[in-house]
Amino acid sequence: MTNRRSFLKTNTTLAMAAPFLSPGFYPMRKQKRNKKLGVALLGLGGYASGQLGPALQETKHCYLAGIVTGSPSKVPKWQDKYNIPDENVYSYDNFDSIADNDAIDIVYVVTPNALHMPFTVRAAEAGKHVICEKPMEISSDRCRKMIAACEKAGRKLQIGYRLRYESHHKQIMDFAKNETYGKIKVMDTNFSFYGINGSNWRFTDVSLSGGGPLMDIGLYSLEATLYGSQLKPIAITAQSYKSIPDKLPGMEESIFWQMEFPEGVIANCGSSYAARSNYFRVSTEKGWYAIEPAFSYGGLKGVINGESMNIKNHNQQAAQMDAFAINIQNDTPVIASGAQGLQDMVYVEAIYEAAETGKKVRV
Amino acid sequence: MTNRRSFLKTNTTLAMAAPFLSPGFYPMRKQKRNKKLGVALLGLGGYASGQLGPALQETKHCYLAGIVTGSPSKVPKWQDKYNIPDENVYSYDNFDSIADNDAIDIVYVVTPNALHMPFTVRAAEAGKHVICEKPMEISSDRCRKMIAACEKAGRKLQIGYRLRYESHHKQIMDFAKNETYGKIKVMDTNFSFYGINGSNWRFTDVSLSGGGPLMDIGLYSLEATLYGSQLKPIAITAQSYKSIPDKLPGMEESIFWQMEFPEGVIANCGSSYAARSNYFRVSTEKGWYAIEPAFSYGGLKGVINGESMNIKNHNQQAAQMDAFAINIQNDTPVIASGAQGLQDMVYVEAIYEAAETGKKVRV
Repeated sequence: MTNRRSFLKTNTTLAMAAPFLSPGFYPMRKQKRNKKLGVALLGLGGYASGQLGPALQETKHCYLAGIVTGSPSKVPKWQDKYNIPDENVYSYDNFDSIADNDAIDIVYVVTPNALHMPFTVRAAEAGKHVICEKPMEISSDRCRKMIAACEKAGRKLQIGYRLRYESHHKQIMDFAKNETYGKIKVMDTNFSFYGINGSNWRFTDVSLSGGGPLMDIGLYSLEATLYGSQLKPIAITAQSYKSIPDKLPGMEESIFWQMEFPEGVIANCGSSYAARSNYFRVSTEKGWYAIEPAFSYGGLKGVINGESMNIKNHNQQAAQMDAFAINIQNDTPVIASGAQGLQDMVYVEAIYEAAETGKKVRV
Repeated sequence: MTNRRSFLKTNTTLAMAAPFLSPGFYPMRKQKRNKKLGVALLGLGGYASGQLGPALQETKHCYLAGIVTGSPSKVPKWQDKYNIPDENVYSYDNFDSIADNDAIDIVYVVTPNALHMPFTVRAAEAGKHVICEKPMEISSDRCRKMIAACEKAGRKLQIGYRLRYESHHKQIMDFAKNETYGKIKVMDTNFSFYGINGSNWRFTDVSLSGGGPLMDIGLYSLEATLYGSQLKPIAITAQSYKSIPDKLPGMEESIFWQMEFPEGVIANCGSSYAARSNYFRVSTEKGWYAIEPAFSYGGLKGVINGESMNIKNHNQQAAQMDAFAINIQNDTPVIASGAQGLQDMVYVEAIYEAAETGKKVRV
């Protein structure tokens, strides 16, 4: 790490100039491609500790370089476990000084949803590329501010849509692109878990979560219908329900929504904190295929017309972060872009509007 | 068969008097319990030839005694295959004379949907017990006429809901009754097949079918939510779709519907002629269970929290018809009753109304 940091320090001017030079004319840029980018995790909750920290031990194009946390008590364990130097540890108060730390190329924002915007903006303003965990934020307006901040800073933004980088899900994207089994007719997906009694912010504080299961896990079903069809919906209907009035304040407990896409393609979707489902199915002119479980961190199973897809599971978060690192190194477009995160939030808002009004919402 | 017929002929007067005598006081009635009832299949289409004829070779309490058909060309094959005597073969013209044939106790109406009412009424007026294939008819008004005719004739009526007699489905009924896995929270079911290009009356003639996939196969999903929860819905929303305008005239191609039951129990349902799905899933407070495939004639697979239900498949139609024969022999209530068929048709009409108006329909 020391070598990497001292290299970056001596090359700061060149590195800043690099975007304006064509790769072929600038050998230092080529050299930069071959080194791992430093990631700082911002927010050390369950997803950071359970998934992202371990994943960053498997990444080839980036590594866990720093942490940003509002919980000082978490710091020693992270430093010990991942050999993080003191100078790469930040609080939310001194976070903006990360601008001066060349060891950090990427800030991965893993806070509660409604903190994604302020931290993404601060990270971009500090000159860092940003990965923002899903959902992008709690409103499309806030998503737009995040995109604007990253564009203004000339930094890339990825949304933590790990499944857009996962092999089973990439397979079904290819099926849609190539019409391998003919045109898609009907999609059917549900991601639910039984969390009705949960005490986490996502079950208790709508000002942080922005919504119930749709915002949290239904978003995976929504995403799957989009990349799984390679289409954009044109109209949405939805219904939301609650069985225990004093739980999940301000949030739905269960939500179903239906989407119409061009050429009569339709999707029936559901998400609930009071159920147990985890699947994505596609019926086409010539057959069907499905992933079930579809949205877990591992152990996904793909089936085509009843036969296994025979696709290996891999570390989804490592694939996602490596892809982003390569996007930065090669200045290529981000797949799980801020634009996609914003688009999804527009659909989420349409789903909530349809559920609240009982009317079909054109999108 | 000759013995059975001669027995019935010599006992006609007693047999007719039997309903007015208590079983304990009337030994002949007890004797009748031990003999197989004669079934005449009315309508010799695919379901009669592929399922009911063979099933009646496995039944213990009834047997294939006669046929009623509008296609004389089908008669020789049926007579040869099942040893059916000439006097038990009827056309639609001379069908009413079946009243004089004591070999026939039950008429099983297996015609297109919109013929169920006239043939059920004629069969009841001929003094026969009736099994009417699902859907009961194409409107609740016609269902009421069928019930009235059977009540007036003092004859029993069963709807061909084979799955109410099937072991996996009976298991989940018991789970609901006993709250084996706690209270039910969310049900999720879809029965679809790819029949969009079919030339059968059910795809081409709405005056016979009364509707598209909901009337035909979605009814199984609807039924499952009812017996699977042991509850009655209180409100329904629905959406119907069509991707190929010149197919399925007057019918939906796909339909999704959502049901609210008491205590916040909900169901998300779908049925389509342009998809491939066949499942019923239940999420409860303490776990989940599912049947998939759920609605096929055989090969059902039940799963509880990921583990097999270990329930053997059996001939569903034989179980259904034997149960009806026992109901007749013992004068006990029919499980898949006309009242249930009517109730379902009221829900079907509510689903269609909700889809057409876009509004929630209270039921």
